[in-house]
Amino acid sequence: MSDTYVLVHGAWHTGAEIEATAEHLRAAGHTVHCPTLAGNRPGDDRATVGLTEAVASLVDYVESRDLKQVRLAGHSYGGMVITGAAERLLPRLTRLVYVNAFVPQPGESLNDMVPPHYRALFDQIAAANKQSVMLPFEIWREAFINDADLALAKAAYAKLNPHPYRTFTEASTITQPMAALQIGKSYLNCVLDVALPASLPWHPRLSERLGLYRYVESPGSHEAWFTRPAELARALVDAGRD
Amino acid sequence: MSDTYVLVHGAWHTGAEIEATAEHLRAAGHTVHCPTLAGNRPGDDRATVGLTEAVASLVDYVESRDLKQVRLAGHSYGGMVITGAAERLLPRLTRLVYVNAFVPQPGESLNDMVPPHYRALFDQIAAANKQSVMLPFEIWREAFINDADLALAKAAYAKLNPHPYRTFTEASTITQPMAALQIGKSYLNCVLDVALPASLPWHPRLSERLGLYRYVESPGSHEAWFTRPAELARALVDAGRD
Amino acid sequence: MSDTYVLVHGAWHTGAEIEATAEHLRAAGHTVHCPTLAGNRPGDDRATVGLTEAVASLVDYVESRDLKQVRLAGHSYGGMVITGAAERLLPRLTRLVYVNAFVPQPGESLNDMVPPHYRALFDQIAAANKQSVMLPFEIWREAFINDADLALAKAAYAKLNPHPYRTFTEASTITQPMAALQIGKSYLNCVLDVALPASLPWHPRLSERLGLYRYVESPGSHEAWFTRPAELARALVDAGRD
Repeated sequence: MSDTYVLVHGAWHTGAEIEATAEHLRAAGHTVHCPTLAGNRPGDDRATVGLTEAVASLVDYVESRDLKQVRLAGHSYGGMVITGAAERLLPRLTRLVYVNAFVPQPGESLNDMVPPHYRALFDQIAAANKQSVMLPFEIWREAFINDADLALAKAAYAKLNPHPYRTFTEASTITQPMAALQIGKSYLNCVLDVALPASLPWHPRLSERLGLYRYVESPGSHEAWFTRPAELARALVDAGRD
Repeated sequence: MSDTYVLVHGAWHTGAEIEATAEHLRAAGHTVHCPTLAGNRPGDDRATVGLTEAVASLVDYVESRDLKQVRLAGHSYGGMVITGAAERLLPRLTRLVYVNAFVPQPGESLNDMVPPHYRALFDQIAAANKQSVMLPFEIWREAFINDADLALAKAAYAKLNPHPYRTFTEASTITQPMAALQIGKSYLNCVLDVALPASLPWHPRLSERLGLYRYVESPGSHEAWFTRPAELARALVDAGRD
Repeated sequence: MSDTYVLVHGAWHTGAEIEATAEHLRAAGHTVHCPTLAGNRPGDDRATVGLTEAVASLVDYVESRDLKQVRLAGHSYGGMVITGAAERLLPRLTRLVYVNAFVPQPGESLNDMVPPHYRALFDQIAAANKQSVMLPFEIWREAFINDADLALAKAAYAKLNPHPYRTFTEASTITQPMAALQIGKSYLNCVLDVALPASLPWHPRLSERLGLYRYVESPGSHEAWFTRPAELARALVDAGRD
């Protein structure tokens, strides 16, 4: 069976970092797109792009290619973007897959779901960098890519790009909770992921906002795209299939 | 070492669906019984059978065969039944094993341990079906057998039978909390099981009602009998051995 | 790469029980020390040794051998001891690794972090045994070494030694929370560990006291030193590496 996947990256990433996982999905016979969102492309103005523009860029990507029966997956911040795009793309979608991803309620921003010490840190970094944020390496190494060795942690970090902070502070404009949206939904949880603190976790805190959903696990950290692409691809199939 | 296991099925099931797992246990040298409880047999009156009759049918099964040194395992609703039978069968039992199973306190019904939206759904279905309930396929597929592909999810669903709702609403008549019962106890948790919401979970919410207990995990969903019988059999040995 | 590990045992243990795991680390090229703390050595006076003496014995072990760039790991009670030694040994340390270990706040004792029914049990046993405590076999078998067969559970139990209770009741004398200590920290969680109740867990309840930390998992129970030494050694490398 050949399914169509659109995999939406998280903050600081582009589609390129998703490709290793996408290749495993393609080897299993699937069609996979890894778009890079507005705000994370070379030359994008990190000071002005917000969630609205990122969502619009995803909607445009899917519509301009006339993609249909899409299994739309979002990682981390990408959950904000697939949530924002879901209502508009609904006839083109088969299923939404959240990969340790944010699930906003109407009116919520990403920052509303992260612990205060991360918000304070991001505020400070954005203020000093024209409203773009980077993640300090120490946090990346310990809490995001905790299952990598140091060489991989550094190599992956070198691929990140500054992220437009307005995408974290702008509220989602969805008109109904995701639990009310009539479409298949899955939550894929990487069991070593402590990018959000384990006491304020992805699952079940955010997964249960989906209403009825399918639960899938994968080994690895928040950055399993780098550390466990084969296992992550297998879990994406478990999450994305009918 | 050859041990004697009695494996008690959950709601909507019969002993037949346990057989794949039982065969793995038998291949490891054990004697395994998979009785079908009163209420889930062909011709049983789903409108009238309650927890009392289900418990009595298990007690009768064990006593009439004069089984001894039994490792008595219950899955899901089967936890209500082995709990109800434990006091009466105590001299014949070596250990109780709860497999993502309900552990009632004295006076509690199964429905007292499930979230309100499940109770409301079951009430509605039972009222429309002469007090028997079925699980809607969508819930089965996403929340019960989330680790299956669609073909297996459908094939397994086709084997289910309507379940007598009185077994969910009738309170357990045990006279003491299970923590007080002097017998070995184990809780086997399938890590993908979100048949109860992860925010109102099997473990540790219900496992810790056992007092001192042995904790064992297995991969797979609530329906690992269908999706992971070999792994489940291995975990049952870890849970059931001395 | 050859790193230096010092692995600090838990209550009732000595360094000898850590050796199976240490051998796997040595086979991977690392230098590993498994000291036995004051209070757990033959002839030690269990009635008088407290946390202060245990910490001092670890500090002395590291200083007298002039060990440097140490990855200092503590298991269970050993977390009290590495925490107490960390400030004094700081220039010699590269990272602290807590293996299902206690992380005290300033002024806390081990007993402050365990459930009341364990404290009551320990009080009673210590009062009857000149202030030394042993763990009843039934608790050991079900809640500490739940992944062993009975033969291994018994063989491992036979190696335990009476533990000086003052090490449980004496408060840590650290002057700042561990979150404030500037050094790499990891928390290694064995996923079957219910030696502390799952409702009052090691992780994230105690792990998050470390502030920024690296999260690592391993299969097995609280006593993976006996049941899963190879996997535990691999996880120790994931936790201990830069």
